[in-house]
Amino acid sequence: MHAHPKAPAPPAAPAVLPTVLISEVGPRDGLQSVQAVMPTAYKLAWIDALHTSGLREIEVGSFVPARALPQMADVADVVRHATALPGWVVMALVPNLRGAEAALAAGVHKLTIPVSASEAHSLANVRRSRVEMVAVVREIVALRDAVAPGVPIEIGMSTAFGCTLQGAVADDEVVWLAEQLAAAGVDEIGLSDTTGMANPAQVRRLFQRVRAAVGDKTGSAHMHNTRGLGLANCLAAYDVGVRTFDASLGGLGGCPYAPGASGNVVTEDLVFMFEAMGVDTGVNLGRLIAAREALKAGLPGEALYGMTPEAGLPKGFAGRRTA
Amino acid sequence: MHAHPKAPAPPAAPAVLPTVLISEVGPRDGLQSVQAVMPTAYKLAWIDALHTSGLREIEVGSFVPARALPQMADVADVVRHATALPGWVVMALVPNLRGAEAALAAGVHKLTIPVSASEAHSLANVRRSRVEMVAVVREIVALRDAVAPGVPIEIGMSTAFGCTLQGAVADDEVVWLAEQLAAAGVDEIGLSDTTGMANPAQVRRLFQRVRAAVGDKTGSAHMHNTRGLGLANCLAAYDVGVRTFDASLGGLGGCPYAPGASGNVVTEDLVFMFEAMGVDTGVNLGRLIAAREALKAGLPGEALYGMTPEAGLPKGFAGRRTA
Repeated sequence: MHAHPKAPAPPAAPAVLPTVLISEVGPRDGLQSVQAVMPTAYKLAWIDALHTSGLREIEVGSFVPARALPQMADVADVVRHATALPGWVVMALVPNLRGAEAALAAGVHKLTIPVSASEAHSLANVRRSRVEMVAVVREIVALRDAVAPGVPIEIGMSTAFGCTLQGAVADDEVVWLAEQLAAAGVDEIGLSDTTGMANPAQVRRLFQRVRAAVGDKTGSAHMHNTRGLGLANCLAAYDVGVRTFDASLGGLGGCPYAPGASGNVVTEDLVFMFEAMGVDTGVNLGRLIAAREALKAGLPGEALYGMTPEAGLPKGFAGRRTA
Repeated sequence: MHAHPKAPAPPAAPAVLPTVLISEVGPRDGLQSVQAVMPTAYKLAWIDALHTSGLREIEVGSFVPARALPQMADVADVVRHATALPGWVVMALVPNLRGAEAALAAGVHKLTIPVSASEAHSLANVRRSRVEMVAVVREIVALRDAVAPGVPIEIGMSTAFGCTLQGAVADDEVVWLAEQLAAAGVDEIGLSDTTGMANPAQVRRLFQRVRAAVGDKTGSAHMHNTRGLGLANCLAAYDVGVRTFDASLGGLGGCPYAPGASGNVVTEDLVFMFEAMGVDTGVNLGRLIAAREALKAGLPGEALYGMTPEAGLPKGFAGRRTA
């Protein structure tokens, strides 16, 4: 195990807490899904632009072997850059203990671990059963407790709403897995619609059941727009008390194993929805849309999504963060 | 006034009433928004394909002067063809008394009249104030009562959620206009997000207020996907009791005065959302998606939208109408 010279500095609290927390996943989930490797300088400029928009949480990379994901070879440098910016929480994805060690050494504020709700997906994706993954999570929790007790651990429970391999995933299995993970000592358990199979009724039912099982450890809604239901599913999650939403600038990324499938909810459209509803996101929508330029500069030719950037903001629209 | 040789035959009741009614507007709203003129034979084949999918309501055209909208020059023939198909309600848009006369003579099952909630939009679009439009509606109601008392009249209240000319439209004005129209004798008053400015909180609030004012005369939700919120807004409307939803196959059309702006909610995605939730639409989704071919044949090169047709149906997905 590495030495951890200092505990990471806690992020400065924003002046006004947003009513919902938009967790930007583009630099991790997005970049991981495209073929191109974004040069580090462009990544940092993009992250700066995202920070300027007022985002309060960002997932900046994965701690995985560079030979597996060359897009993430510079993740430690990216984490160091992002954590030097004030007022936001910098997360990284870690698939195993080794990744968690490296992420904590780099000074991340928060860890996120993917665990599949579908046994078939778990075996195919990480060659581990769900029970084996819970054991991995326990090891990471022990590491965190030993070296960085202030760093929260989040689970992104993938295929929670269905699986392209096995089809439906039973609600009971999602709830069972959430209970196992809560008992393993994680801080948050989010539900991911990895395959774009979720519908609003299911989203409401499943988040309510998970909340009944693990209470305030219920985490974010990570919805995909594969069949156009991304925002409707976010609305459904909001209606049952979810307050953290994963999204990706320009809708970059999604499932790297379903190439061509449109994936992540578009941050710009999600922020527009909440701000138009009068729900504070903390994000300045104009600056968020401007951050697309930094993304385009780093990934020339890559397809970006988003209806709000194309249509523009409506006449008379005022988000809460226009300064 | 024309003679009306026979009252139009009432549509045959479908065997099982759908839980929601999807009102397809493509042949009217869609075709009216594109430059190309679809030849009549292609229109009829497209309408046949839509009928085969199980749709129970369709808006097939506008009764307007052919010089103003050459796309609608064949509307009477199209109405006669569509009304000969069993088990659905065939609507046409009529902007004035003359159009209503022609529509009733052609044998439509239902009339829809656009009335702007925004005074600025009303004056710009039809060169009549809202009060003048209510007077037009009263004339059409009197005609209907005299010659075709079984034909319901629906209002599509455009710009109900905002206007590109005047910006916000006050809820009170929408409610006031709905009350005027109900008093004028119409059967249904739907609310249209002509400009893609609606948000789910507003949709819930406004439909609830209109229902409090005019009760069961509250009609359809006609949402646009201009800023990606189309399905979220439909979900919001469903949540407060709306059961009729306008949509357009392939998302064709929207506002003809905002070229390039993506417009109508995509029927395929809307049907997928409800069917996935377990809400019966009466529509066979596979056949609905197949109907896109008939649309493409009649409008070669026209951009079509829709995420569900592109992604395909999820593994294990079973709509209710798979026969």
